[in-house]
Amino acid sequence: MTLSQVLNRIDGDLDAATDRLFDLLRIPSISTDPAYNDDCVKTAEWIAKDLTGIGFDASVRTTPGHPMVVAHGGSDGPHVLFYGHYDVQPVDPLNLWNRDPFDPVIEDTPNGKVIRARGSSDDKGQLMTFIEACRAIVAETGALPCKITIFLEGEEESGSPSLVPFLQENAKELSADIALICDTGLFDYDTPAITTMLRGMTGQEVTIHGPDMDLHSGRYGGPAINPIRVLSKILGNLHDDNGRITVPDFYDGVPELTDELRAQWDGLGFDGDAFLASVGLSVPAGEQDRTILEQAWSRPTAEVNGITGGYTGDGFKTVLPAQATAKVSFRLVGEQDPHKIQENFQNWVRAQIPADCRVEFHDHGAGPASVMATTNPAFEQARLALSDEWPNPAAFIGAGGSIPVAGYFKTILDMDSMLVGFALDDDAIHSPNEKYDLRSFHKGIRSWARILDAMT
Amino acid sequence: MTLSQVLNRIDGDLDAATDRLFDLLRIPSISTDPAYNDDCVKTAEWIAKDLTGIGFDASVRTTPGHPMVVAHGGSDGPHVLFYGHYDVQPVDPLNLWNRDPFDPVIEDTPNGKVIRARGSSDDKGQLMTFIEACRAIVAETGALPCKITIFLEGEEESGSPSLVPFLQENAKELSADIALICDTGLFDYDTPAITTMLRGMTGQEVTIHGPDMDLHSGRYGGPAINPIRVLSKILGNLHDDNGRITVPDFYDGVPELTDELRAQWDGLGFDGDAFLASVGLSVPAGEQDRTILEQAWSRPTAEVNGITGGYTGDGFKTVLPAQATAKVSFRLVGEQDPHKIQENFQNWVRAQIPADCRVEFHDHGAGPASVMATTNPAFEQARLALSDEWPNPAAFIGAGGSIPVAGYFKTILDMDSMLVGFALDDDAIHSPNEKYDLRSFHKGIRSWARILDAMT
Repeated sequence: MTLSQVLNRIDGDLDAATDRLFDLLRIPSISTDPAYNDDCVKTAEWIAKDLTGIGFDASVRTTPGHPMVVAHGGSDGPHVLFYGHYDVQPVDPLNLWNRDPFDPVIEDTPNGKVIRARGSSDDKGQLMTFIEACRAIVAETGALPCKITIFLEGEEESGSPSLVPFLQENAKELSADIALICDTGLFDYDTPAITTMLRGMTGQEVTIHGPDMDLHSGRYGGPAINPIRVLSKILGNLHDDNGRITVPDFYDGVPELTDELRAQWDGLGFDGDAFLASVGLSVPAGEQDRTILEQAWSRPTAEVNGITGGYTGDGFKTVLPAQATAKVSFRLVGEQDPHKIQENFQNWVRAQIPADCRVEFHDHGAGPASVMATTNPAFEQARLALSDEWPNPAAFIGAGGSIPVAGYFKTILDMDSMLVGFALDDDAIHSPNEKYDLRSFHKGIRSWARILDAMT
Repeated sequence: MTLSQVLNRIDGDLDAATDRLFDLLRIPSISTDPAYNDDCVKTAEWIAKDLTGIGFDASVRTTPGHPMVVAHGGSDGPHVLFYGHYDVQPVDPLNLWNRDPFDPVIEDTPNGKVIRARGSSDDKGQLMTFIEACRAIVAETGALPCKITIFLEGEEESGSPSLVPFLQENAKELSADIALICDTGLFDYDTPAITTMLRGMTGQEVTIHGPDMDLHSGRYGGPAINPIRVLSKILGNLHDDNGRITVPDFYDGVPELTDELRAQWDGLGFDGDAFLASVGLSVPAGEQDRTILEQAWSRPTAEVNGITGGYTGDGFKTVLPAQATAKVSFRLVGEQDPHKIQENFQNWVRAQIPADCRVEFHDHGAGPASVMATTNPAFEQARLALSDEWPNPAAFIGAGGSIPVAGYFKTILDMDSMLVGFALDDDAIHSPNEKYDLRSFHKGIRSWARILDAMT
């Protein structure tokens, strides 16, 4: 294929590509809230139809949860599997959005044009960079440059309950020479990155039950135990004064950085103070004896993602509630075993429950950390291709986020994954006013065209 | 007046009295939620109209918050002021109600007929016992037996912000020989009580601010501080392992029981285990070196009445939230100073806030504890009158709940208060499925007729 012609076509087609992305962003595919089940199906069907138009053999595949999209194209050369997810995070608190999260628009900002909408960066905008690259290549050359399978799920933001069974049932169809995953970010504005280290995650909901009904805090306050008091005490014990997590055996399987990787990371010139300052903070909250980059990339965490109990409306209600609930997640690294950690955490909580309270746990998924095998030649091919597109050469980096699918591709399909993405730290994914730089979208499409060209 | 005729009329008029109470219960006068402001006004107007019908000179008096109802009647004899509140608690969680909280009904239960509705016990049913007694006396004798002022507020469940200024501005009009307050309970099913010891209360909302927006717990988890973690740690420190509150100087002004009162309370045969068992508990949660009765009546408490932060909807969201909030209240006894305790608590919290977090406090009112002057002859008159109506003789008791107005009557109007009420521990006030025994309503009306007869 003639790369320059493909890149020219991508430049000329950007407005149309943006319109297509807007159509996709308008469908509120919030996977964690059952109210949006139909919208998740609509989204899968929209993408399958679009892929069919490019020449893929695309289908929407039902699961016990939200459907998968599987599409096959091309015939010769290496076989790559592209992964992304079409589901998005909830939008609350809605009042903090400056516009309808599902009414995408191009906004001018001091840093250039951005696409403002839920899912623009995580992950609809990113997955479309690959699809648009394929569209341009087919339009310019009449065919895909190699054998390409596109595999998209709709449950990434809700623990991917259907992913493992689907991979197991369709292992043969989904196995390729390498997986390309587009759900990560640039290292910085001018430096593209290939993420080679990902934290795993396990999440669960903890509910403490005390009295068998809500009580008047005057009549019963004192003698009657308050579940919020029990829950607060337990969560307050989760970290010690040095930011270390106190759950027994939590650090089993946590590796130290290799000298090589540590040197590479030191060379990145990462500005930890600026990283914190960008979100209004100044004091690193993780393990006090670790750098900010380690705290974010290579050290495990425990976070309370949500807590609720008693009266939380306007004004004041003197209630002593019957229960209190917290959503707790752990980010995992190295060889940490998600299931072992769930078990240790639950036992640790149970040991702190008063005799006449009881605790209930609700599982919200578990995925191990991933460390990529950068020995695969595709990594060097992609690194050079990205370095041609962006101002600075591409870097191999770690990432704090969790993309369990990379681990499953390895364990279930014995397939290496290469993570390339174009998001920025200020994209506010999972937050109000999520955005994706138009530049990320445009150069992202061009990056995939270059990578596919380099691999074939 | 001829008491027996009045009591007969009360018995014969019970159905009509119940219908009148139902009309009052149908108005959702939730004072803490601005959405119900108009309903609070409607409720005040309904009562003023009813009192006018009995012959009172009744008026609805506006305040910066919800209106007061003030009504004057009678001419000769001692001057009593009756206090109650027409506002009610919020109804959430609504799904735990077995019917519409504002569609009152008589239900048959193993313990007899009950009136099921929000406010049936706290405090609409209770205040109507006095009004119905006045109605029966006027109907039977043509006049009230003494000078009676009825004073009802609509902000008792939301910190009574307008109460103190209103008492100060109308001190002359509202001053009487004694205040009768109907917002307390029987000691047990067959034992009426005059409450002579009430805990005070101060409440406030605490909001911890961390990052300046919600963050992705993968990207920022570790380096970025989580406000829920900060809030949990602080709330977890509020009590030590012996159930004592750790805020500095918190126990200043907390008195020991007199030997006399301790002996009287020991004589009540209070079953602490049954008290806890009635709400599904078995282990006293207060100060470990105090009896359950002391923990409930004569010792101060700290309770978290509500907590919220991060994602609390269905499913899971890996968010690291920008803020977390708790509603915290303290029950006060003896000479504890509510304002001093607020100040000490706020300083104690501030001292635990990390350098790059900030805390915001929102005041939700403060009222001191009350200890009644039982030397006033009205106490003995009422004790005997109640003993005539109920199976067991009346007892002087304490109460865990807070009725700040009693303290204000003393400090602002130099007026003693006598607290007589007919609620039961299982009325589920402040909880789903609140009820008021029809027996409490009926014998409550009869009790007031007897008390007014004994006092005049």
